[in-house]
Amino acid sequence: MIHPKLPKIWYGGDYNPEQWGPEEWKEDHRMFKLAGIDVVTINVFSWALNQPDEHTYDFAWLDETMDRLHADGIGVVLATSTAAHPAWMAKRHPDVTRVDFYGRKRRFGGRHNSCPNSPTYRKYSGRIASRLAERYKDHPALLLWHVSNEYGGYCYCERCEAAFREWLQNRYRTLDAVNQAWNTRFWGHTFYDWDDIVLPSGLSEEGEGNVSAFQGISLDYRRFMSDSLLACYKIEAEAIREHSKDVPITTNLMGTYPELNYFDWAKEMDVISWDNYPSLNTPVSETAMVHDLMRGLKDGMPFLLMEQTPSQQNWQAYNSLKRPGVMRLWSYQAVARGADTVMFFQMRRSIGACEKFHGAVIEHAGHEHTRVFREVAELGKELQRLGDSLLDARSDAKVAILYDWENRWAVELSSGPTVELQYVREVHKYYDALFKLGIQADMISVEADYSRYDIVIAPVMYMVKPGVAKKLEAFTAAGGTFVTTFFSGIVNENDRVTTGGYPGELRPLLGIWAEEIDALPAGQYNQIVMKEPFGELDGSYDCEMLFDLIHAEGAEVLAEYGSDFYQGMPALTVHAYGKGKAYYVATSAAPGFLRPFLAKLCADQGVKPLVERLPDGVEAARRVKEGRSFLFLLNHNADLAAVDIGSGKRRDLLSGQILSGTVELPGRGVLILEEV
Amino acid sequence: MIHPKLPKIWYGGDYNPEQWGPEEWKEDHRMFKLAGIDVVTINVFSWALNQPDEHTYDFAWLDETMDRLHADGIGVVLATSTAAHPAWMAKRHPDVTRVDFYGRKRRFGGRHNSCPNSPTYRKYSGRIASRLAERYKDHPALLLWHVSNEYGGYCYCERCEAAFREWLQNRYRTLDAVNQAWNTRFWGHTFYDWDDIVLPSGLSEEGEGNVSAFQGISLDYRRFMSDSLLACYKIEAEAIREHSKDVPITTNLMGTYPELNYFDWAKEMDVISWDNYPSLNTPVSETAMVHDLMRGLKDGMPFLLMEQTPSQQNWQAYNSLKRPGVMRLWSYQAVARGADTVMFFQMRRSIGACEKFHGAVIEHAGHEHTRVFREVAELGKELQRLGDSLLDARSDAKVAILYDWENRWAVELSSGPTVELQYVREVHKYYDALFKLGIQADMISVEADYSRYDIVIAPVMYMVKPGVAKKLEAFTAAGGTFVTTFFSGIVNENDRVTTGGYPGELRPLLGIWAEEIDALPAGQYNQIVMKEPFGELDGSYDCEMLFDLIHAEGAEVLAEYGSDFYQGMPALTVHAYGKGKAYYVATSAAPGFLRPFLAKLCADQGVKPLVERLPDGVEAARRVKEGRSFLFLLNHNADLAAVDIGSGKRRDLLSGQILSGTVELPGRGVLILEEV
Amino acid sequence: MIHPKLPKIWYGGDYNPEQWGPEEWKEDHRMFKLAGIDVVTINVFSWALNQPDEHTYDFAWLDETMDRLHADGIGVVLATSTAAHPAWMAKRHPDVTRVDFYGRKRRFGGRHNSCPNSPTYRKYSGRIASRLAERYKDHPALLLWHVSNEYGGYCYCERCEAAFREWLQNRYRTLDAVNQAWNTRFWGHTFYDWDDIVLPSGLSEEGEGNVSAFQGISLDYRRFMSDSLLACYKIEAEAIREHSKDVPITTNLMGTYPELNYFDWAKEMDVISWDNYPSLNTPVSETAMVHDLMRGLKDGMPFLLMEQTPSQQNWQAYNSLKRPGVMRLWSYQAVARGADTVMFFQMRRSIGACEKFHGAVIEHAGHEHTRVFREVAELGKELQRLGDSLLDARSDAKVAILYDWENRWAVELSSGPTVELQYVREVHKYYDALFKLGIQADMISVEADYSRYDIVIAPVMYMVKPGVAKKLEAFTAAGGTFVTTFFSGIVNENDRVTTGGYPGELRPLLGIWAEEIDALPAGQYNQIVMKEPFGELDGSYDCEMLFDLIHAEGAEVLAEYGSDFYQGMPALTVHAYGKGKAYYVATSAAPGFLRPFLAKLCADQGVKPLVERLPDGVEAARRVKEGRSFLFLLNHNADLAAVDIGSGKRRDLLSGQILSGTVELPGRGVLILEEV
Repeated sequence: MIHPKLPKIWYGGDYNPEQWGPEEWKEDHRMFKLAGIDVVTINVFSWALNQPDEHTYDFAWLDETMDRLHADGIGVVLATSTAAHPAWMAKRHPDVTRVDFYGRKRRFGGRHNSCPNSPTYRKYSGRIASRLAERYKDHPALLLWHVSNEYGGYCYCERCEAAFREWLQNRYRTLDAVNQAWNTRFWGHTFYDWDDIVLPSGLSEEGEGNVSAFQGISLDYRRFMSDSLLACYKIEAEAIREHSKDVPITTNLMGTYPELNYFDWAKEMDVISWDNYPSLNTPVSETAMVHDLMRGLKDGMPFLLMEQTPSQQNWQAYNSLKRPGVMRLWSYQAVARGADTVMFFQMRRSIGACEKFHGAVIEHAGHEHTRVFREVAELGKELQRLGDSLLDARSDAKVAILYDWENRWAVELSSGPTVELQYVREVHKYYDALFKLGIQADMISVEADYSRYDIVIAPVMYMVKPGVAKKLEAFTAAGGTFVTTFFSGIVNENDRVTTGGYPGELRPLLGIWAEEIDALPAGQYNQIVMKEPFGELDGSYDCEMLFDLIHAEGAEVLAEYGSDFYQGMPALTVHAYGKGKAYYVATSAAPGFLRPFLAKLCADQGVKPLVERLPDGVEAARRVKEGRSFLFLLNHNADLAAVDIGSGKRRDLLSGQILSGTVELPGRGVLILEEV
Repeated sequence: MIHPKLPKIWYGGDYNPEQWGPEEWKEDHRMFKLAGIDVVTINVFSWALNQPDEHTYDFAWLDETMDRLHADGIGVVLATSTAAHPAWMAKRHPDVTRVDFYGRKRRFGGRHNSCPNSPTYRKYSGRIASRLAERYKDHPALLLWHVSNEYGGYCYCERCEAAFREWLQNRYRTLDAVNQAWNTRFWGHTFYDWDDIVLPSGLSEEGEGNVSAFQGISLDYRRFMSDSLLACYKIEAEAIREHSKDVPITTNLMGTYPELNYFDWAKEMDVISWDNYPSLNTPVSETAMVHDLMRGLKDGMPFLLMEQTPSQQNWQAYNSLKRPGVMRLWSYQAVARGADTVMFFQMRRSIGACEKFHGAVIEHAGHEHTRVFREVAELGKELQRLGDSLLDARSDAKVAILYDWENRWAVELSSGPTVELQYVREVHKYYDALFKLGIQADMISVEADYSRYDIVIAPVMYMVKPGVAKKLEAFTAAGGTFVTTFFSGIVNENDRVTTGGYPGELRPLLGIWAEEIDALPAGQYNQIVMKEPFGELDGSYDCEMLFDLIHAEGAEVLAEYGSDFYQGMPALTVHAYGKGKAYYVATSAAPGFLRPFLAKLCADQGVKPLVERLPDGVEAARRVKEGRSFLFLLNHNADLAAVDIGSGKRRDLLSGQILSGTVELPGRGVLILEEV
Repeated sequence: MIHPKLPKIWYGGDYNPEQWGPEEWKEDHRMFKLAGIDVVTINVFSWALNQPDEHTYDFAWLDETMDRLHADGIGVVLATSTAAHPAWMAKRHPDVTRVDFYGRKRRFGGRHNSCPNSPTYRKYSGRIASRLAERYKDHPALLLWHVSNEYGGYCYCERCEAAFREWLQNRYRTLDAVNQAWNTRFWGHTFYDWDDIVLPSGLSEEGEGNVSAFQGISLDYRRFMSDSLLACYKIEAEAIREHSKDVPITTNLMGTYPELNYFDWAKEMDVISWDNYPSLNTPVSETAMVHDLMRGLKDGMPFLLMEQTPSQQNWQAYNSLKRPGVMRLWSYQAVARGADTVMFFQMRRSIGACEKFHGAVIEHAGHEHTRVFREVAELGKELQRLGDSLLDARSDAKVAILYDWENRWAVELSSGPTVELQYVREVHKYYDALFKLGIQADMISVEADYSRYDIVIAPVMYMVKPGVAKKLEAFTAAGGTFVTTFFSGIVNENDRVTTGGYPGELRPLLGIWAEEIDALPAGQYNQIVMKEPFGELDGSYDCEMLFDLIHAEGAEVLAEYGSDFYQGMPALTVHAYGKGKAYYVATSAAPGFLRPFLAKLCADQGVKPLVERLPDGVEAARRVKEGRSFLFLLNHNADLAAVDIGSGKRRDLLSGQILSGTVELPGRGVLILEEV
C-alpha cells in the first residue's frame, strides 16, 4: 500500500494519550521525533471516554489529540474504540455481555467482551463508528480506519442461539438438509423443528478442548461465530464508508488465530493488518509462515504489521527481553514477507492494569536513555532512508501451501484417530522444510488460483470442499506438482466421510487408496524406507503419529514402511497425472525426510532457492515490483554468518554497499539486496 | 445360554440400517453372509425415529428391518432405543435433561443424557418399551431384548434430590439413624428435617474426583443413583415382560465401570452382557479379570460379549489398530472366560458424528477386500464349526477373589491416608499373580457362597458389610484359606470406623491388630523380609504405598518390615483358624512377592494350575460342562510359544488335531483342548 | 501469656465430646490424666447442636461438658461454634451460603461456608457468641474465647458486591479516585456510577489462579474480603466482650494463608493462636519462619500453638506418620519460637466423615497402648516439669525480615514478567540462609518499628506503601543495614507504577536505577560474579528467574552478571546512606550466595549467631525474659549431632544437666539451655 499521505514504511504504534496528561504528551512528541515515529494508532479502547452515557458523545479529547498529532506531522490510524464496551452499557443493557461455554452469563470486565449478536452492541458500535467517520473523515492526520481490535471469542447466549437457527435456515433451507449434513440419525438426534436445535456448548454437544459429539453442528457453529463477529466488523465498516469514501479500513488480525476464518474476513477488509507476538519458543520459520499467510489473505497484497512489542510481552509464562538487534531483525522479517509498516504496541507503557509489564517505546523510566529506545530510534532512521522503495512489492513464489481454517476446525474436532494431530504443526513442517531450503512459498486459500504456481502442497487436507479436487486435478494435469499427506480426502465440507475408500475425492488424482489408518502413541516410530534413491533421499527416515495403510492403484511406490505388520506397504507414492505428478506422503515424516523430498520436487520443476546453500539460521525472502527485485537476508543467529549470494552485483539498501560472492552478516544482521 | 433359535456362539453386532438406504442394506446382507454373521443388535439409538413427537409412533422402518433380517436368517437383539432421548422431548419437557455436578442444567445433546428420576423419561421410556414388546414379541427374528445402552452418569437436579430424600427415608426410617450413619455431629451437620438434606455435589459436600467432606452421604448418593438408573431399567424390563414372557432381557454393562453396583443390577437381568474396550495399555490379565467379573455377576452364568471393536476405537488418545490376529485372539479370550457370543460395535461405520473413526466390520471403503473384513470372516467360519459345544460351559475355579462396588466407592472417597490407593489396581495385582501362575479364579460378590472355594482373597476389604466377617470365619474354620490385606476391616457399610483396633470385625479371624497406617509417597519403598522360606518365598521383597503397623495377637509372623522405624514389625502373618488359615498382607506387595506367595497357598490347598510352567504371555482358562472339559490356551505374544500340556491326549476343537506333551502355539495363536 | 488459671505451657487440644457418649467420656478423662492434658478446645462445630432451630438454644450438653472437665481439673478454650452454619439455617436463609468464583450459589455443605456479608450469619453468629459469653463468662473452667475456626474463603454474591461498593466509597470517597487508582482508562473501563462497578470474579475481571485484567480492583477485593471476614470476627468478639470483660479472645490463624491480611487481624485479637500443619516436604526452616511470623503479628508477643497433629494428617496426598520423636521435636520448635501452648487436633479420632484418618491423641483403638499416646504422655510430663519458666519469654533478634500480605497479593496478581515468582518462596530463601547461620530473625510488618533492629531485609518489596521508603531511609541513615531485591519499588499501594525508573521510591536509598527486567524460563541461569571477595563470597554464583538490568547512580557495584547481553552489568550493589548501607540483590540468588552474603552483613553489624558453626539440620532459637536467656537446640536429623555451645555453663531445663563446650544431641533431640 503506497499511501499518498505517508509514502514510506510507516513507523509507530498504539498510543493511549488518554491515560496521560499534557506533560507526558509533550515528552511523547519530543521522543517521537527522536525515534522517527510518523504514525500512531489511537482511540482503541476509549469507548467509555467517548460516550459516557447512552445519549452523550464527547470527542473533545480526540479532537485535541488529532490536532496535536497532526501539528507535529504524525499520521493517525484511527480506531473506532469498540473493542471493549463501557461499564454503564453492561449495566443498562445486559444483552451486551456474553454467555460462556458453560452457560454462565458474563458480567462487565476484560475486553473482547461483547456478544456479537447483541442488538445493543451492534447499534452502539455502528453508531459510534458513524460519528467518528463523520467527524474525522477529512482530518488531515487521518491515514486509516481501524475497526475494533483483535476480534475473537465466542458467545453462547440465547440470542446467538436464535441467530444460529436463522443462519442454518439460510445455509440449508430445509431441516432435512441439516439432519443429513450432521448425520443426526446417529445417536437419534433427528430434529423435527428448527427450535429443536440447541447451540453446541459445554451443556449440550461439546466438552473442553474441541471435543464434540457431533462435528457437523460444531463446525457450523464455528462458521456462524466467525460470520457473527464479521457482521459486527461490517456494520462498523459500512457506517464509516457512508461518510469516509476513500480512507482504507482494516482491523488487526492475529495470524493463525483459530476462531475466525480470516479468508472470509479478508474479503471485507481494504487492507490486512496483524499483530505479531511470537512466544519464546516460536521457530522463526513459523513467524515467517504466518506473515506469508497474512500476505496470502488478499492474494499477495502487502499488509500492515500493526503490533509487535519493542522489548517484552507480559502474558507469556516467561517474558524474556528481545535481545539486542532482535527487534530490528524481526521488523525486517515482517517487511521481507510483505509488511509495509513497522508498528508497536505500545508507545508509552501504562502504569496500571494488566499490560503494565508489556514493553513500550517509552518505558516507565520515561526518557530516551534506554536500550530499547535507542534501538527503536536507530530503526526509525533506517526506515526513513528506505523511503518508498519497497512499498507494495510482491512475492514471486512458485510454490504454494494450502491453508484452510475450516479444515483445521474439522481436523481438530475429530474424535480419533489420535489426539496428537495439530493442523498448524503439520502445515509448518512443510513450510519449514522450504524455508530452510531458501525456497519462497505463498500461503494460500483453497479458493485461490493455483495456476500461477509450479508446486501446490496441501498438508492434511482432511476436508475437501466442493470443486477443489477438480481444481487440483486441472492444476496437476497442466504440469503442476501436487503434494498431500495422510488423513487427507476424508470428508466433505460438512465433515461427512466420502465413502468408497480414502482419500475419497482425491483418489483419481493420487492413484492410491487407503484401507486403514494406524495411530501410534507419542514417541513411537515407524520408518519411511526408500525403494531407490530419490534426489538426495536414500535409506530410511523416521515417521510417526498416523500411518495410512495404502494400496497403489496407478501410483508408483517410492518408499515403503520399514516395520510393524504393514512393513512393505507404501509410505510414499507418486502418480503421473496428465503432464504433472501427484505425491502422497502417507505418514507424518521427520524433517530429515521432508527437506530433501521437497528439494527434489523443486529441482524437478526448476524452482530455484533464493540463495544456494543457505546457512542454518539465515532466512531468505524476496519482494519484487516493477522489474526491481529485493532479496532479504536475515541472520537469526547471534553469531556471524557467511552467505554466497552469487556472482551478480547487488546493492544493499541499508548500507548502500555493492556486494557479490560471499557476504558476511553479523549476528542478527540484515541485508536488503537489490540486483543492479 | 443355549438359545433355541440360535444354538451356537452368536456372531454379529450393533447395526444401524436407519443411517443408510436400500443399496447399502443389500450390500450389508451380502457381506454378513460372507462373514458368517448371524445376529445383529438394532434400534439402539432410534427413539427420535420411532417417536417423532409426543403422540406419534412409527415403526415402519423397524418392521421392514426385522423382516429383511429374518428373511436372510439373521437373528435380532432388539434394543428399546431409549439410550438417548429425542430433541423434541428435551425442548418440551426440560425435566428429561440432567443437572450436572456443578448444578448446571444440561440441554439437549450427547447420549446418556436423561435424568433417571425424570417423570417424562420414565413415562416415555416405559411406553416405548411396551410398544416394542407388544409389536415384536412374536417376531421370528427376535432373540433377545436389549434395554437402553450402557447405563451411566449421575444427575443432580431437584427431582433427584427429592427422590434421594425418599430413598433415605426408606433406608433409614428416622433422621436420627441418618445423622448417626453419617456422623453428622462432625462439623455440626445435624439434620432436623428431611428437607435439610442437600444432595452431595460440587455445590455442597463434594469436589472434583471423589472428594467429599462427608463420605456417608456421598456413598449413599452413589447407591441411590445406581438404584435410580436400575429403576429405569426395571420400568422397561417390566413393560417388556408384560407382553413378551420368555425372551430374555439384558442391558450391556461396562466391566468395572465405577458408577453402578452391577451385583445389584445382575439380579434384575436375565443374562449379563457387556462391552469390552481395553485401552492400549490394558494388561491382558485385566481384560481376563473383567470377563471373570462379568461371569461372576450371576454366579458363574455365561454372558454375552455384546460389543468389541473389530479394529480400532476412536475415543482413546491414540487409537491403534488391532494387530493381525488380535481380534480373533481377544474374541476367544472372551469365550474362554464365559462369553457365549462374539459381537462387535459396529457392523457398518457411520459417516458423520463422533464415532466415524471407530472400527467396523464394513469399513468406509464399503467392500470385503480389507484385512479387517477378512479376519472377521475367518473367525465367523470357525465359530460356525464350533457349534454348540462350548455353550453354557462353566468355570470350575477353586479360588475366588471378592469384588465389591460399595467398598470401592468408600475406599476412593476416603480422605487419607494416600491418594495412590486404587481399588481395582489392588484387586488386579492379586488376580494377575494367579493369572500368570495359570490358576483359574472366580470374581465374586461378598454375598456369594464361599463354600465352593478352597481359597478366598479379599484385597483391601476396607468395608466389612454385616454378616461378612462371620461368613469368612465359617469359611476358614471349615478348612478354607482366607487372604486379606492392609487397609481392611476399617469401616462398616456406612463408612463408620469399627473402633477398638483395626482390622475391626476381622481381628478374631486374622489374629492381629493394626496400630497405625503409614503412607509413603509414590516411588518410596519398604521391604517384606521373610523370617524363613515360605514356598519359594525367601529373602526380601519391595512393598509400597501403605504400611499397616500390626501386632500379632495369635497369628504367626511370616515376614517383617525391612526398614524405617517399624523395621521388625510384622508385614505378613498367618492365623490358624479352625481347620483353615487366614493370611494378612500388611502392605502393597510387589508382583515378585505375590506370585510365589499365592503359589504356596494354592499348593497347600491342592489347587493345581491349569498348565504347569505357563510361558510368559500365554493365558490358560478352562470351561467345563456335562463331564467335558475345555482348556483354552491363548498366546498373547507376537511370537511362537511352547506349552507342556501334559501326557494326556487332548483334541483341539479348532483344528481337530489330537495333541499331548509340548505343543506349539504360533504368535496370537489359540488352542481349545478337550480331554479325550 | 501467663494465664492466672493455668500458668504453664498448656497441653491439650480440640475435643468433640458431642460425637461420643458417657462411656468414652470416662475413658477420655482417664487418658487425659495419663497424658498430662490440662486444656481442651470445645464447641468448635456445635452450632447445629446448640441451636436446633431459629428460636431455640440448648446448652445442656455444654453445661455438662464444662462441669465435667472442670471437675477433673481441665481448663477450657471455649469456641463459639460458628465455623459452620446449621443445615436448617441454609434452608431457611439462603443468604447464609456463599456464591463461588464462577457465580454458582453454594448450597449447604462443608465448613467455612458462610457469606461474610450475610445478614443472617452476622445476626446469628453474634447472637450465639453473646449467649455463650453470658452463660459461661464466670465458669471456672473457662480460660480463653475462641471465635469461629480458621477463617477463610471468599464470597462473590450480590450482597458482597453491594458491600464492596460501600467499602470503596469509604476508601476512595470519589469515583474519580477509584478510576485513577485502578487506571480504568486502560481498556476503557471508566466507571461513571458506583453501581457500574462489578466485583472481580471468574465472570468479570479474573481467571483461575490469581489472574486479573485489573490488578487494582482485584487487590481491593482481597482487602475487602479480609475486612469482611474480620468484621465477622469483630461482631462475635464484641458480643463476647460485653459480658466477659477479662477473658482473652482469639481465633486460630493459618500461618502464611494467602487470603487474609493477618497484620490487620492481629490488631483485633487479644492473643495470636495458629494451626501448624507442615506438608511432607515443608523445610523445617519454613515452619520456623511461619512461627516467627505468627510471633511478629503482635510485635513479638508469644502465641498459642492451637493445633498440630500428634501423628498424621488426612488431607495431604501422602499422609506419612510423624516418625518417633518428631511430634516432641516440633512441639519444642513451636515453643522455641514463641508458643506458650502445645495443642493438638484432635483429642479423640472421629469415626465418620472426612477427618477420620487424621491423627489423634486417642486413636480408633481407644486405649493408651499406642506409640502415639506414649509419646504424647511423655511430653505431657516434661511440660509439667517446665512449669512457667518459659512463659512470655521473647525474641531478642537484631535482624528483621519484612512480610506483607498486600505486597504478596500484588506480586502474585501481576501479569508478567514471570509465572515463577512466589513471594513466600523468595522471603523464605532469605530466612533460610539466616536460619542455617544460626541467626535469629523476626518476621515483621512494614508498619513495625525498625529501630530496634540492626538489619532489615525486604525480599521482593514490589509494593512500597506510603511512608515506608522514608522509614527505611531513616533506619538506614541511623546506621542500619537494609537489603532488598529485584522487582522492588515498582508500585504504590494501588499497584500503580512509580514512574521515572525502578525501584521508584527506593531509588535514593539504593543509589541505583533499573532499566529493564529480564525473565528466563525455569532451569536457565545467569551468574552473580563478585568483583572482589566480600566476606566469604568470591567468584561466581548461580542466579535465576528475574534479572534487573540496573545502573549504579551512587551505589558501589559488588558483583556483576556473568553472561548474556547484560554481562558486566551490576548484579549486587551497596549504597552508603547516612551511617548505614543499603544493598540491592538484582536477581534471585542461589542459597550458596545468600548464606555467606548475609553472614558478612551480620558480621559487619556485629550480629552474632546463637551458636557458631551450627551443624546441618540443627536449629537454634532463643527466648529471653527478665534477664534469663533460654537457648533452644533442636536436632532435626535422625542421627546424633554435636554442637559447640561455648565455654559458658548452661543448664538444660529438660534434663537438669549442666553443660558446656561440645554437647551431643541424639537424633530428634532437644536441649533448652539456660545460662547459669
